[in-house]
This record gives sequence, C-alpha cells and structure tokens, in this order.
Amino acid sequence: MLNIAVIGCGYWGPNLIRNFMQAPDWQLVWVCDADEIKLNSVMTAYPGVKKTLRFQEILDDKSVDAVAVATPVSTHYELASQCVSKGKHVLIEKPICQTAEQGEKLVRLAEQHAVQLMCDHTFCYTGAVRKIKEYIESGELGQILYYDSVRVNLGLFQSDVNVIWDLAVHDLAIVDFLFSCRPSRVSARGVAHTDSSLENIAYVTLEYENSFIANFHVNWLSPVKIRKTLIGGSRKMIEWNDLVPAEKVRIYDKGITLSAEDKKQKSKLLISYRSGDILAPCIDQTEALTVMVKEFAQCIHENRPPLTDGKAALRVLKILEVAQQSLVCGGSTISMSW
Amino acid sequence: MLNIAVIGCGYWGPNLIRNFMQAPDWQLVWVCDADEIKLNSVMTAYPGVKKTLRFQEILDDKSVDAVAVATPVSTHYELASQCVSKGKHVLIEKPICQTAEQGEKLVRLAEQHAVQLMCDHTFCYTGAVRKIKEYIESGELGQILYYDSVRVNLGLFQSDVNVIWDLAVHDLAIVDFLFSCRPSRVSARGVAHTDSSLENIAYVTLEYENSFIANFHVNWLSPVKIRKTLIGGSRKMIEWNDLVPAEKVRIYDKGITLSAEDKKQKSKLLISYRSGDILAPCIDQTEALTVMVKEFAQCIHENRPPLTDGKAALRVLKILEVAQQSLVCGGSTISMSW
Amino acid sequence: MLNIAVIGCGYWGPNLIRNFMQAPDWQLVWVCDADEIKLNSVMTAYPGVKKTLRFQEILDDKSVDAVAVATPVSTHYELASQCVSKGKHVLIEKPICQTAEQGEKLVRLAEQHAVQLMCDHTFCYTGAVRKIKEYIESGELGQILYYDSVRVNLGLFQSDVNVIWDLAVHDLAIVDFLFSCRPSRVSARGVAHTDSSLENIAYVTLEYENSFIANFHVNWLSPVKIRKTLIGGSRKMIEWNDLVPAEKVRIYDKGITLSAEDKKQKSKLLISYRSGDILAPCIDQTEALTVMVKEFAQCIHENRPPLTDGKAALRVLKILEVAQQSLVCGGSTISMSW
Amino acid sequence: MLNIAVIGCGYWGPNLIRNFMQAPDWQLVWVCDADEIKLNSVMTAYPGVKKTLRFQEILDDKSVDAVAVATPVSTHYELASQCVSKGKHVLIEKPICQTAEQGEKLVRLAEQHAVQLMCDHTFCYTGAVRKIKEYIESGELGQILYYDSVRVNLGLFQSDVNVIWDLAVHDLAIVDFLFSCRPSRVSARGVAHTDSSLENIAYVTLEYENSFIANFHVNWLSPVKIRKTLIGGSRKMIEWNDLVPAEKVRIYDKGITLSAEDKKQKSKLLISYRSGDILAPCIDQTEALTVMVKEFAQCIHENRPPLTDGKAALRVLKILEVAQQSLVCGGSTISMSW
Repeated sequence: MLNIAVIGCGYWGPNLIRNFMQAPDWQLVWVCDADEIKLNSVMTAYPGVKKTLRFQEILDDKSVDAVAVATPVSTHYELASQCVSKGKHVLIEKPICQTAEQGEKLVRLAEQHAVQLMCDHTFCYTGAVRKIKEYIESGELGQILYYDSVRVNLGLFQSDVNVIWDLAVHDLAIVDFLFSCRPSRVSARGVAHTDSSLENIAYVTLEYENSFIANFHVNWLSPVKIRKTLIGGSRKMIEWNDLVPAEKVRIYDKGITLSAEDKKQKSKLLISYRSGDILAPCIDQTEALTVMVKEFAQCIHENRPPLTDGKAALRVLKILEVAQQSLVCGGSTISMSW
Repeated sequence: MLNIAVIGCGYWGPNLIRNFMQAPDWQLVWVCDADEIKLNSVMTAYPGVKKTLRFQEILDDKSVDAVAVATPVSTHYELASQCVSKGKHVLIEKPICQTAEQGEKLVRLAEQHAVQLMCDHTFCYTGAVRKIKEYIESGELGQILYYDSVRVNLGLFQSDVNVIWDLAVHDLAIVDFLFSCRPSRVSARGVAHTDSSLENIAYVTLEYENSFIANFHVNWLSPVKIRKTLIGGSRKMIEWNDLVPAEKVRIYDKGITLSAEDKKQKSKLLISYRSGDILAPCIDQTEALTVMVKEFAQCIHENRPPLTDGKAALRVLKILEVAQQSLVCGGSTISMSW
Repeated sequence: MLNIAVIGCGYWGPNLIRNFMQAPDWQLVWVCDADEIKLNSVMTAYPGVKKTLRFQEILDDKSVDAVAVATPVSTHYELASQCVSKGKHVLIEKPICQTAEQGEKLVRLAEQHAVQLMCDHTFCYTGAVRKIKEYIESGELGQILYYDSVRVNLGLFQSDVNVIWDLAVHDLAIVDFLFSCRPSRVSARGVAHTDSSLENIAYVTLEYENSFIANFHVNWLSPVKIRKTLIGGSRKMIEWNDLVPAEKVRIYDKGITLSAEDKKQKSKLLISYRSGDILAPCIDQTEALTVMVKEFAQCIHENRPPLTDGKAALRVLKILEVAQQSLVCGGSTISMSW
Repeated sequence: MLNIAVIGCGYWGPNLIRNFMQAPDWQLVWVCDADEIKLNSVMTAYPGVKKTLRFQEILDDKSVDAVAVATPVSTHYELASQCVSKGKHVLIEKPICQTAEQGEKLVRLAEQHAVQLMCDHTFCYTGAVRKIKEYIESGELGQILYYDSVRVNLGLFQSDVNVIWDLAVHDLAIVDFLFSCRPSRVSARGVAHTDSSLENIAYVTLEYENSFIANFHVNWLSPVKIRKTLIGGSRKMIEWNDLVPAEKVRIYDKGITLSAEDKKQKSKLLISYRSGDILAPCIDQTEALTVMVKEFAQCIHENRPPLTDGKAALRVLKILEVAQQSLVCGGSTISMSW
C-alpha cells in the first residue's frame, strides 16, 4: 500500500479524495488546502485522514510516497517541483503547467529524481476510450484516416480561459492517448461573442503525416449538447457518442475498397463500397477516476511511466499553445516538430 | 404561360423536365440532348414535347422564352451565353460556370440583354430552408452568431471534383441565401485518402464582420450519414436535421444573457442561461424543384431577379475558388472583398 | 411551520427525510425505525433530529402535526390508523394499504378525525405530469381518446409482487391524477417466466365510457428501457418520453377531422388529416418530492384534500386488485362501479 | 421459365407486375382487369404482355403455369378455386379469403390438384424478418419468451375493415412465419373513435404454451409513426425498428440468469443480470417482393409448399376471426385448438 496526500479541496479534489479512499492500493494520509473552512467541510466525512493548511507538512513527511495536485493551474509548477525534488511521485490535474517551458522543466526534474509524473487525463481512463484504443491497436480499423470530434453545449462560460483550453483540451488528451503519431501542422479559428475577448466557439485542426487529419469543434453556445466523435479507418470506422450510455461506442464494418487495377489509373477511380454489421461492444462502466488512481499505483510499483505521463501532458500543452497562437493570428497553419 | 426548353437529359435533366411538365406557369416545348438514345428513352413518357439533337434549333425558335441548362459544367458558359444573346431567360444548374471569370461575363451579358439569369440552388427552395429564412428575417433569432453544418456520409467519390465542390457547394448556396452579409475571410483544410488527389474530407470556414462565423464539415468517408446544421442567434437558436422528416427544423428558445452591469467589467462575467420551449414548426412538403420552377416563372413575369440569381451563383463560385486556393496552400486564411 | 415525523429509514425514507429537511414549510422532529443500525446510519447527517426505535413515542408527542409512513406495506394500515386516531395528518407511501378494504377503513377514519390523508404518488408531482395535466385541463387536446403507456426495462425482479404491482401502479396513479373519469372495465394478461409464479410481463387495459381506453405494457425483461406514453386527443396529441430529459413532453398539433356532412353518412367516411407544429414545452425541473412535501403542507394549511389523497390511492388500489383478479382468471374483462 | 398471369391492376397489382417482369424465373404472359382504362394505363409500360378483360381467357390458356390474384378479397375464393381446378399454381394477396371456411376449402382443393397455393405475406420476405428468423432458428436467442409489437401512426382510416384487419394482419403473418408454435388463447380489445363502428385502436394478445406471449398494439390515431418489435429470448433479445433503415435489427446479448440453487427455493429468487454487446447485423436490402416471386417459382420447381403457403394464410385468417370475435365480446379470451 502506498501513502498519498491530496493538495486542493476545490472542484475536483473531493473526487480524487473519494477515489483514493476507496482504492485498495492507496492509503490517503494527508489532505491540504489553504482554505480552512473548505478543508474542514470536505473532510468531515473522512475523520481518519490528517488535515493541514501547510503544504510544507506534507513535503516533510517521509512516509508520503505520492502527492496529487488539484490546485489552480498557476500553482502546479511550484508545488509539483517541490514534491518531485523530495522524491515523491506526483499526479497533476490538467493542464500540467501554465507554459510548455515549465512543463519541460518539470518532466526533466522528475526524470532526474526517478519519480513518476502523471497527469489526470480522466477521459483516457473511461471504458469508452479504452475500448476504442483496443480497436485501434488491434489493427481492426486498418489505417486511421481521420478523427472528427464535436464537443458543444450551452456551456459554462469560463472567465479565464477560452473554449479551446476548456473543451478541446479533452480531445487533445484523447488523441494523444489513442495514436502514437504527432501532428505536424496545427491551426485554429474561433470567435468571441461576449464582451470578454475569450473565444466561445472554435475549430481546431491537426494535420499528421500520411493524410491523417483530426478536427475538433468546440462551442459554448450550442442549443443542444453533442459529444460525438467519428474515427475513420481504412477497414472499419467508429462512432463514439458519449451521451448514449447504453451504446457509447459503435464499430461500423463499412468503408471503401479500391480494386488493384484501379490503383494504376488514377483517372478512372473505381471504388466499391462495403457495408457490414454494426457492433456496439459492452463497455466497462467502472468510474474513470477509479481506473486512473489504480494506474498511478501500478506505474509506481512497476517502475514504468504511467499511460498519461508528464510527457503526454507536455505534448498536449504544446499543441494548446500552438493552437492559441494560430487563433491569435487568424487561423494560420503552424508547423510543429517533435 | 411561358415556353421553356430543357438542354440535357442526364442525371438532373429528367427532374427538371418532370417539374416543368407539371407546372401551370410553363409549357415545355423542346428537350435537347446530343445523345439520341438517352433523349428518346427519357422522352417516351412525354410524347407531346419536341426532341432535338441540335441546340441550334432551340436558339432559332423565337417562341422559346426560356432555356434550362442541365449539361456538364464545362458547357454552361457557352450554351448560356448563346441563349442570353438571343434574349432568352436562362436557368442553369450549379455551379453556374467553370470559373468566376466566365460567371462574371455571363452575369453582365444577361444584364445587357435584360433577361433573367437564375441558378438552380435547389436547397434554397426546400420548406426547411425557407422556414429558417423566415425566422432569421423576422429577427426572432436576434443577432446571428454562427452557422455550423455537418454534411457527411459514405459518399459517392467523384472522379472530377473534390468533396468541397460536391458537398460544400450546397452549404455555400444556403448561407448566401439566408444571410445578406458576405464573408471577409475564407479558409479550407482537407485531405485525400485515395490515390486520386481529390480531397474526400474537408473543413471550410467563412469569417464575417461582427464575429459571425460559418463552418462546413464535408466528408465522403463517414460511417453514418449526417445532415445537421446549428444556427446560433443571440435570442434563439436553430437545429436543422435534414434526415428527420417529421421535424427537420427545431427552434430553441435558449441562450445566454449578459446583464447590464456585467458589460462594464469584463473581468467578472456574469452570464445567465435561458432555457425555454422547443418548437418544431410544420414544414411545407412541396418538392423544392416545384417551388424553384415557379420562382423562375414569377421573376420573369415580375421582371425582377430571381431569389437565386446569377449574382448569387457567382458569389458561391467565387468562394469555392478561394476555398480551393486555401486548400492548395495548406489552409491559409484568404481575404475576400465584395 | 408544521412538525413532521418520518417512520421508516429503508429504501425511500431517506429521500423523504432529505426533502422534509429542506422544505421551508416543515420542521422534521422525529425519525423512527425498528432497525437501530440503519436508523443511526441515516441520521448521522441530521444531528438535530430526534431518533427513536419506538413508534409510540411519536404518537405520544402532541407537537407532531403529521407523520410520513415509509415502512413495508403490510404495516401501513396499522401505523396510519393510529396516527390518524391521534389527530395527526398522514402521508403514506404507495400502495396505501394491502387491501382495498383496509384502504376504505383508513379513508373513513381520516374523515372522522378531520385529518388529511395523502399518498405519495410521486410521478404526479413531476414537471412532466403537471405540464400534461395543464394541457388536458385547458381543453387544448380536445376530447381524450386514448392513453397508451410502455414501461419496460431489464428490471429488478421483485420477490414479493408481480410487474403490475411494481410498475403499472405508477401508470394507474398518473391516469387517476390526469383524468376525472373512472374505468368501467378492467382486464390484465401476463406471464411468469421465472420459477416464481410472479408475472414479469403484463398488459393492463382500462376501458372508460365515451370510448376512452388506457393500456399499460409493463415488462421486466426488455433489452431496452422504454418509458413512453402516447395520449391521443381529438384536437392535439401528446408524446411523453421520460428518458429524453431535454424534451420529455411533446405536443403534436396533429389529428383527424371529420367533416360535417360525413357524420351523417357513416358508409362514406371522409376524413381529413391535420399536421401542424410540434412543441416541446419547457418543463419545471424541480424534484418531484420537493413539490409533493409542499403540497402536503399546503393541503393542511388550506384544510382541503391533497392532490393525491386517500381516495385517489384507494381507487388505484381497487383497480390493482381487479387487474390482479383478471390476471388470475386468464384475462377476463371485469366491470367496476364507482 | 414459368408463365404467369396477374389478375388485378389496382393498388398492389402493379408491384407484382413489375416484379414478375424483372424476375428471371418468370415470363409474364397475361394481365387481366375488369376496368379497361386502368388496365391500359398500367400496361402501356409493358407492350409485350397480353391484356384481357376476361378472366376466362387466362383459365383457358394452357400455357399459363401460375396465376397471381390481386383483386378485392371478396373475389379471392372464386377466382383462386377456378385456377386451382385448372391445375394452375396460385399466389393470392392477403387475406387469402373472406372466411376461414372458404380458406379451408381452397387449401384442400389445391392439395387435390397437386398445385402450390401461396399467400403474399410480403413482410416475411424482407431482409429484416428473414434475419430474425435465422437468429430464432439457430437457437441463439434461447427459449422465446415474448413478442411485442407496436404498429401505430396517423393512419389511413379504412372504410371497410378495422385496424386489426388492416395492421395486425402483418404481425400475425410474421409471428406465424417466425415461430412453429400456435396460440392456444386469443383476445382483443379496441375502440372506435369515429362515427364508423370500425375500431381504430386495438390490442391483440396471443398466448401460447410454455409461457410464450405475443401482443400487438395497432393504432390509426398516433401522432408518431412507430414500427417497433421486441422479441425476448432466454439468452438474447431482439429489437426490430423498421423505421431505422441503417440498423433495423439489433441483437442484445442481454438477459437474466437464474443460478442453479435458486431454482429450488422460489421464495429467495436470486437473479443475475447479463449485459453484453449489441449487434446490428447487415440486412439484405433486396425488395421483399423480388424474394417473394422467386420463392413462388422455386416452390413450384421443387414441388414443395412455399414458405407462406395456403395453410399459413389460413392460420392467420383463423386468428383474425377469433380476435374479431373477442373484440365484439368486449375482450374475452377465446381458446383455439389446432
């Protein structure tokens, strides 16, 4: 059993606390928050766990194996660096840091101290995304041609970040998790409809080698909530509708086939269309955070990077930065190298 | 009653022929096609209509008031120019010409000869689009914020045009019809997944003044057919799902409201969310082509431009050309002036 | 403010406790359960409320204005009778008693003691059912022709009651609430597929004067969950799909019209079909139990029967008994008089 | 190649004519109708086929192998009997005759003359129903527990038959086709809402041995069109939604399992719920009538009864008669023996 401390009792902290409490791999020993009222209110349900207003207490406790950081993003780098420097494994909420520069330092620091650095890309631990990853890795879809996501609703307008940092960050984390390739070109277009200058509707496009393209439509001003992703493969295709609990993932045995001779004469394309069964596989209903905290324990036990490690979080952050840059430049396509 | 001649018996011609035959405003007098077998096959059902292989016969017939051109696009300019020069009104299938340059000449020629030049933007004559136009023009939606269309399916790969010219052309025609403003910036990104160099998936973005943005996702490689458009207004919003016959158009009395004091202090946005009734208005089921041929007659009788006139078709063509240019340049945003 | 005591901390009791705690009209003073462990576990969250294992303590407390009975149905009659006899208003979970005979005695007793007797027909206090009642009472639907409900899912097989007592009881309570007329004939057919002799699929039909018919399909063995009700009126019709949160109730301006002359000559029916707008009105999202406990307070203050009073509960119970009798007799239609 | 004659050019006749014309197994030689105008109008498209107003001409033509009867039902028995007596195979539209008595005579006559007697139960030849039959016969569903069909819409009110004879007849034909067992008890309830005495909404229940139950809800006054059937098996279940072209049939690997020990003690039912994949198999899109006319040819070539033979049609007719009798008696359950 590993000893964990949670820093931050705000919006997401209580979910982490509940899951660490229930996890057989973890012993929750400390919870820290600068706001004493909030801290006490959250912790009445967990009388056996130590509370503190001082982060230093946790740093000084050598029995603490790992720390989960669920504080505002502006504090991530400072808090995580100190934990890492004390040899503690760290789990951080996304985005991992405010800038890619900070992220890179943190990743290097964790390597130097030989501790695991994990980012809570929650969606990657859902049954739906794990099932989709299975299909992609098995080769059943064939070559991946495109990834198209629509993530729109009448959303909570954020006062500090635009819709890309609020919603597209999920898609970026998922795409990073599902595919081993990295985008070579990024662009983003969007508009702000309120007096704030924060975009509330945006389109982000990632272009990869081999004609793979990913596009995300994110929107806080949609009359209907949509969470629908299409993944096109050369052999099969996936429709992931996260709002249909009974069948979130559907595999279509459907596509086109170019016959051998056609390939020679481009001018006379002769394409045949295949249409087969549709399968909605049974999806594991385990709460994503439960799977996530288990992975955090396992990567430490096995001394290997977690599925969503600091490097993954850094890649997501880098793309966010480039997308933001493109948005500011009116949608210019910006090249990325990895 | 006006006398009409139809040129071209291919894919679309028979639909025009059937509708002109049924229209009380029109007398179908001639049908012309260079392919005698096809011409005879189509016209057995209409023994009272004259057939010809020679376009010149129609040009020479002074009783012909108007000509409908449903031939391959490469012949549009030549055929339409001759008709116009003979003082005949002309209806042309879309796209109106191969190039904007041709289109401009044709529009000018029609003005010189004082004949009506109409383009068959069929979607603009559907009950759904006409109903949406009513809502927009009544001001019930408030200020229009965005237009987002998804037009995807496992499509017929075309051998001569890419997915933008095949599918996005519909969206461009609809947007031109619905809104009086014109895009100031256009961009397009897409990829080709077959050996042909024709893009089969693309994203086209139009940016307007006043933060109005329109985006079209067109795709020939989707496992599911989707024809869904969201139109966001500051007061109400529309969802148009063309695949749900019983309720294609839905009006959401839903949106956000910024309270007066908030407008002053951007830093503390206080947005309230409204959620009211949803209305699916009864949509006129008349076939779009029936409405279109009636409009063609009426604009001639009333000596006014048709709803989808040559200028509208030319605007669509210009945007197509610029989108194509952006696509070739890897998604650059290109400014347009009108 | 009225003082309330809740008897029973099992499945439903905690929901009542939570709602009475939050209600401005009520002061929760006592909670009673024979199981001390369960009682303590539920009540840790409410340290200010008195707990007891002895029901008599509540009976003896003259400050208690009303009692909510959420115990097993076999104890309802005994507990409620004693409360009523002490002059306390009573709210009972459904079904109100085990037999209609008990129910009748209880209703009479409440009248003698001039206290309000209310049954927790929760569905009647949902926003959806209240909205439907509005439409029916306004006359907008015209004459009501039929009520058809499908309430099926892969359900929890009950070990003591069949699917009619488990699921159709909801429909009976709703129909009693919506319509002032009473069924004159009842029938039920069903089968048991497990070794228990309890039916897990059943069809219940109520026939009324004036050709109004109501039918309920209840099923614990359906692969899909369905909660769909159609209500046909001579002017408009309603579709109530309880599983579509955003638009549970839809009003169709749709139906048939018999023209005047046709009415004379039955042989030549000339019916015309109307098809108008579809409206999904905004539905109040307040939790049904919150509305229910408020009604309980109001009926006491206003000294009037509650919307779902003992008599309503008794009517539901009588129909359940007759339906059960029909089921046993192989589906015979049984007449009822009121 | 077999020679066929079609009698009747009304609503359905032209569909038969078109399909017999296209079928490689058949040579359409004669079409007969008493209405000369209708006959000529339909047959202009088929100049090579002989027309006649006199049925006798067909009877006398020894080259005619088979006759398809698509005339009003009141003439079925007389026309079919004469054809059979002349040794011609006969295909009849449903219902096969006006009364079961006639039907029985006709079946016997066909046996005596050793000709095939087939009824056009079109639905049984759709890809969806054939796929469902495959699943049932393979045993994959386990023991069949129930069949529940909803067939409702704002329907064409018929002036001569009620909704059972118009709509439930399809369900009866399908159920007869899918299952080898026959109902032992039948009941029906319904109401008439127009001045005609013909029921426009009805519920029909068939009860079989082994707790198999089938129920049909048919309704001409529904605001929405529904064509949905649930088939419950002990191992898997089917949802057939005929209005979703892309996935009409869905197989749910879902159900309940009684563990061995539970079976002994009914009082303590311990049921476990299984929830697995959902499969929407690819459905053959061939037009049902094309498959049907092929089966008619094959059963003659192979000298075996067709899939929907006279006996099947007679069973459907008998159940219709008993359902009608139950309807008249106010819903009494009526026993049937086979």
